[in-house]
Order: sequence, then C-alpha cells, then structure tokens
Amino acid sequence: MATPPRSPLAPARFPDIPAIGGVRSATAAAGVRYRGRDDVLLVELAPGTHAAGVLTRSATATAEVQWCRRALRNGGATGARALVVNAGNANAFTGPHGEAAVAVVVRDAAALVGCPETSVFRAATGVIGERLPADRITGVLASLHDGLRPGNWDAAARAIMTTDTFPKGAVRTTTIDGAPVTVAGIAKGSGMIAPDMATMLAFVFTDAGIAADALQAMLKQAVARSFNSITVDSDTSTSDTLLLFATGAAGHAAVTDAADPRAEAFRTALQAVCTDLAQQVVRDGEGASKFVTVQVTGAADDAAAKRIALSIANSPLVKTAVAGADANWGRIVMAVGKSGERVDRDRLAIRIGGVAVAAAGDVVPGYDEAPVARHMQGQEISIEVDIGLGSGGWVVWTCDLTHGYIDINASYRS
Amino acid sequence: MATPPRSPLAPARFPDIPAIGGVRSATAAAGVRYRGRDDVLLVELAPGTHAAGVLTRSATATAEVQWCRRALRNGGATGARALVVNAGNANAFTGPHGEAAVAVVVRDAAALVGCPETSVFRAATGVIGERLPADRITGVLASLHDGLRPGNWDAAARAIMTTDTFPKGAVRTTTIDGAPVTVAGIAKGSGMIAPDMATMLAFVFTDAGIAADALQAMLKQAVARSFNSITVDSDTSTSDTLLLFATGAAGHAAVTDAADPRAEAFRTALQAVCTDLAQQVVRDGEGASKFVTVQVTGAADDAAAKRIALSIANSPLVKTAVAGADANWGRIVMAVGKSGERVDRDRLAIRIGGVAVAAAGDVVPGYDEAPVARHMQGQEISIEVDIGLGSGGWVVWTCDLTHGYIDINASYRS
Repeated sequence: MATPPRSPLAPARFPDIPAIGGVRSATAAAGVRYRGRDDVLLVELAPGTHAAGVLTRSATATAEVQWCRRALRNGGATGARALVVNAGNANAFTGPHGEAAVAVVVRDAAALVGCPETSVFRAATGVIGERLPADRITGVLASLHDGLRPGNWDAAARAIMTTDTFPKGAVRTTTIDGAPVTVAGIAKGSGMIAPDMATMLAFVFTDAGIAADALQAMLKQAVARSFNSITVDSDTSTSDTLLLFATGAAGHAAVTDAADPRAEAFRTALQAVCTDLAQQVVRDGEGASKFVTVQVTGAADDAAAKRIALSIANSPLVKTAVAGADANWGRIVMAVGKSGERVDRDRLAIRIGGVAVAAAGDVVPGYDEAPVARHMQGQEISIEVDIGLGSGGWVVWTCDLTHGYIDINASYRS
Repeated sequence: MATPPRSPLAPARFPDIPAIGGVRSATAAAGVRYRGRDDVLLVELAPGTHAAGVLTRSATATAEVQWCRRALRNGGATGARALVVNAGNANAFTGPHGEAAVAVVVRDAAALVGCPETSVFRAATGVIGERLPADRITGVLASLHDGLRPGNWDAAARAIMTTDTFPKGAVRTTTIDGAPVTVAGIAKGSGMIAPDMATMLAFVFTDAGIAADALQAMLKQAVARSFNSITVDSDTSTSDTLLLFATGAAGHAAVTDAADPRAEAFRTALQAVCTDLAQQVVRDGEGASKFVTVQVTGAADDAAAKRIALSIANSPLVKTAVAGADANWGRIVMAVGKSGERVDRDRLAIRIGGVAVAAAGDVVPGYDEAPVARHMQGQEISIEVDIGLGSGGWVVWTCDLTHGYIDINASYRS
C-alpha cells in the first residue's frame, strides 16, 4: 500500500521539545516489518524514575500489555529504567510465542541498562496474529544503548509510527516549588482505536519528582478527558498503552500525594500534554479530513454526557455526513436517541458551528442552513448538544469517516 | 443523488406471494418526497384482525412509533383494521407538528375504513427533522381505499422503499388444525440501522386466527433471532417498526395461548419469514458487496454470544477487511476482545469459510491462507468464533463496509 499523504489536519510542525533530565533515547531500523526507516525505540530512564500507566481493557490484550501491567503492580516497586517500543508488529494473539518474545527483549534490555527486568517497559503495535521476530529487536539493542542521547524527540516519535502520517509530540512547562518542570510526550495512533497498524501508544516524560502512587492517580485523572475522550472508529485496540515516567531530575522535594497543592500546576500541564497528544491522534485518524468536537451539556451526569457524546462521535452516519459537509442534524438526533441515556425530545437543543439548529423537539423557527453549511465546509467542526435535563457535561473529539478510511483498511496488509 | 444499482446480493426475484384472506392493499404516488413513484401504502384488514408489534427503543422515536405503541396497548383492544405507510419522510423530531401529522392521517383512514382510530396503524421512514406534508397522504387516501385489492405484494413492498435497491418479500405456508395458513411479509431497510433514508420497516400478515397476546409473544420470540440479529452500521433508527397482523380468515379455532401445541408450525413459519426478511435487509445494506454470517459458539451464555457476535459484526475494521477480501483474522480477535464479555485468549478458536485459522491463542499450525483468501473473494462470507467457555451461541448477519456506504451517506440529502 502506498504511504497515505500527510493528514490535512496535521499541525504545521513537530514542537520544539527540550531535553528532559534523566531521559535519553535512541532509535534504529531493525526491519521488524518496515524497511528503510527506524522502527525500534529505546528510552533509558535515570535511577529513581517512577512510572504510571493506563492500558487497554481488551480481553485479548497483547503480551506487552500484560507485561506492563505486571511491571506497574505494587506501584512499580522496582521503578522504571527502560522502555523498548517497536512498530509494525503488535505481537498480539501469538500464544506462548508472544510471551517469549517479550521475555527476551526485556531480559536483554535489563542487562544493558543494569536493572531488574520489572524496571523495563515494553510496547508494540502493528499487525495482529503474526509472530514477532524478537531477535531483530534484541539485535539492535546494544547499538541503541551506545547511541542514547538527550532530546531526540522527533526521531523517537517517528520510530513508533505505523499508519500515522505525521509524528506526534507535545510539551508544557511549569514549576513545582519554584523548580522549572517539563512535561513532554510522544504518541502514535491513526485511529486510537484502529487496532492493526494504527493502535495508540503514548509515552509521557517529566523531570518532576513524583511518587508512583501519586503519579498513577494524576495520570488516571488526566486520561479521562483526553485519551479516553477520543474515537476514530469505535474499535478498541489490543495494544493501547499510555505510560508516564517521572525522573525527579528537576530537584524539588518529591510530591508523594496527588492532593498535594504543589502538584496543581503539574496536573494542569499533564492534562494539557495528554489532551494535545490525544487530539493529534484524532487529527491523524485514518482518512480524516475534518476534526470534530462533540460537546454535550445538560445531561443527567457526566457519565451520561460522555456516553451520549461517544454515541454521536462513533455514529457512522454522523461521521459520513460530516465527511460530505452535510448539515444533517437529524442524524445527531438519531445518535442521541440510540445512546441508551435518558433524553426528553422536547428539551433537546442542537448547535452546529455555534448556530442553533434544533430546540424544543423541533427545528428552530426560521432556521437558515446557509451559515451551518458554510461551517460544515471547514476542517474544524463543532457539534453541541444540550440535553436540558441536568448539569452533566463532556467533550469528545473525533474525525469524519471518508473513502480514505476504506482505502486504508480494506487493503492494509497488501 | 443517482439511484444506486440493485444490490449484487439481492435475490433473483420477488417471491410469489398469494393473497391472504382478510388483507387488501393499494399504493399511490403522493409526492411526499419522491416524484414518479408510489410512496404511500394503505392496507385494510378484515374485522377481527389482531395485531402485535416490536418498535424501536430509540429515545427519540417518531410520533408514528409512539402512536403504534399506544394502539398496541392492552393487547390492541380495538383490533387492527388499517395500516398506512409512507416513504421519504420519517416525521421524526418534528415536535407537535409530528403528532398532528399522525393524527390527521389516522383520523381520515379510520373514517374511510369505518373503525376506531386506535385500529389504524401508522409507519413512516425517510429524512429526520423535516415536517411531514400529511395533506399529501390524506389527499390520496380515498382513492387508495377505492383501489384496495388482494395480493398486490410487489407493489406494496416497492411503495415503502427509500434507499432500498430491491423490494423485499417473504412467504411460508403451514397448517393449524389442518387448515392451510399463510404467513407473508414485506420489509424495507438498507441498513436496518441507517436511520435517515433507510430505516427498517417490516409488516407481516397471516390468515391464521391468533389472539393478540399470543401473537405478541410469538412475534417477540421470532424477532430475537431475526430482526434483532442483523446490523449494517450499528446506528439505531428512530422509526424501526415491525407489525404482525393475523386476520383469522383461515377459519380454524383461534389460538389463544402462545404455548398451544397447535401453533408450533405457525411459530416455525413466522420465524422463517422474519429471518428471510431480516437477511434481505442486510443483503440491501448500503453499499454492501458481501453478506456475512457471524456465528459465535461456546460463550458463557446466549446473551454473551450475541454481544460478541455484534461486536464482530459492527466493527468497522472487520467490515472493511471483508470489503477488501482480506483474511485479516487479527481484527476478529480485536473485536472479540473489545466485546466486554469473558474471553480466554487460549481457548478462542476462529474459522473463516469453514477453515480453522486460529486456535489455542495462536494461529493454527501450518496455516494455509490460500483457501481462506478464496473464500473471502466470494459474496457469502462465514466467520465462526468458538469462545470455548460455555454453551452460549448466537448468529448475527451483516454486510461489509465499502466505498458505496460512504457515497450513499456522505451526500444522501443532495
């Protein structure tokens, strides 16, 4: 398959991300699946680094995901010292071979870095059901280790790409106790939720000093309104992995409690980095030509608002209407109706591009489609639905469903 | 939009359906939306006809659906005497105008047929959110009433079509107490579940004599493994309506209890008609080029099997792989994994086209993709998944996701 062109929704360029104390990385072309490009990333983390993670809930999760779950157990008791990521093969549904493939990579990485095996994290995306040639990864680990260097973010983001059309990075800076702190991350995914060649991985690094339990609590909170609020095609990956590493190199007294007020600004920066990366994944959604923000307000509670927003964002009929720049608000009504949540038709209100379209169970009086049609021609689409029943709200980001999605997915293995 | 060509999955021709005692119908071109084709159907039912129905669970259901729900209340106490169906406008989300539009059609039909208003049933599909020009329907009712005739099934099936590419009918015959009984139905839908121009309606008629409560129980049972086991795109309609009318013209002593052994053969015939019609809806799925049977066995229970089967059948990535004739069984693993049901990777077995592909958490030893690839090139695709945990089973029918679906839905209003 020819490489698809860079998404029209891509940011102008990869952000300038500074080196983060305690983080070094290197990339290499191991030929796991791709030829002529880097496909393996090694990140080394300074002693004392704490880790947190959120992993796919798929019942057919990969051996890598199961390994990370194990390494994070008991608050990641041995700390985090290394991360090895490959692109092109997800090592999913490969039976005992899958577990063995994880074991050899972890063993060799631990030996090189000089740490317990449970301090090595592992992630992979790509084809499901094909055995991972782990020897190609172990074969490049020593030279990767020799080449470790600070910064290197653009190369790292590129090495983990599969069907992604642009590398994804984000950075925010803040302070803790007056010490400057950086939070930076990279992600891949083109279709969070397109599991084959496009599953989502994200790795966030900070020089803040934060204990594992506090880190995990803050990551979980940040994920709810970022990575867990995006969808491309409603398919859930076997490989979704988000890891957060805090090296402590910033030098302030460690934060040991997520409720510590000193961590408030860090929490904001972490949320911003996660949201930025999550939105970039949607902007690289397979075949995407429009970025869609679905905002639901007035639901019975936040959980109801999220389910309604996802029902709209996952609807193939809403997504094809957006692709066709069709201001077909009837499909939004349908998607609200199928959500399973409490809805009163006569309280429902819909705005597209900020223009009131429907309210009180009917189209608004004197509705003029022209400004809505103009909005639908753009690349940034806003859909707002007020349920009129309570104070629950949520925002979900998605993209349209186009011929490009079919092109990519009807023949991706060829 | 140009009329799409007849689905390649369509049956060779409309079945020969005999007249059913107590049922007469007529169709007319009322210009509700379409020009140059019949778009309104009137069915008259003999006095003593009992009705049963299953209606959409959408929270934004149409005024027609709400009317039918009311008419069916208390076992449809006043019986069924008429059915009025229009195509092209769903009368959905049209506020009080919607209810008024139902009221005038029901009132006029009741006056013509000479029956209580609650003996008139009403259904509509088409665009959501546009006011129904009910006067165009009432304007043709008198001439429709004058033109009522037995049989007429092909015309009736055509008059209710929207984006359908072929009229859908099915018939089975059986006996009750030695009396010959016919069960026949028509349906429309091109995407059960595509709510705009393609929502599902189905009407089944029989000359059997069956009391309303027994009829309702038998219909509900028949729906579970027919209309509720199909999906095109996972979108749920605001208009889905299935009605069953039993005129009693066959002359046998009435069945008053669904458990009556005399009704066993009728139950089988009803199931067959519902399954036949439901499969035809999938065969006319928007853009469909392949008919897919997803069979799940070995699940914890039937409900779990159904959820797993629907997770596979609704997955855009499975559907695009089928469209591309790609034997990409990893996507089936993904869809099983995201179903939320209990799954043990190492017990999962997958067959495509009858060929074992994966088992015991891995690809089968010596897997040869060639026969599977040949199967995927065909029009009738079989996916079998054994969960290996229990005895729950279910079959779901769906179609592939193609460029045709995007073409139809990205511009259907133009």
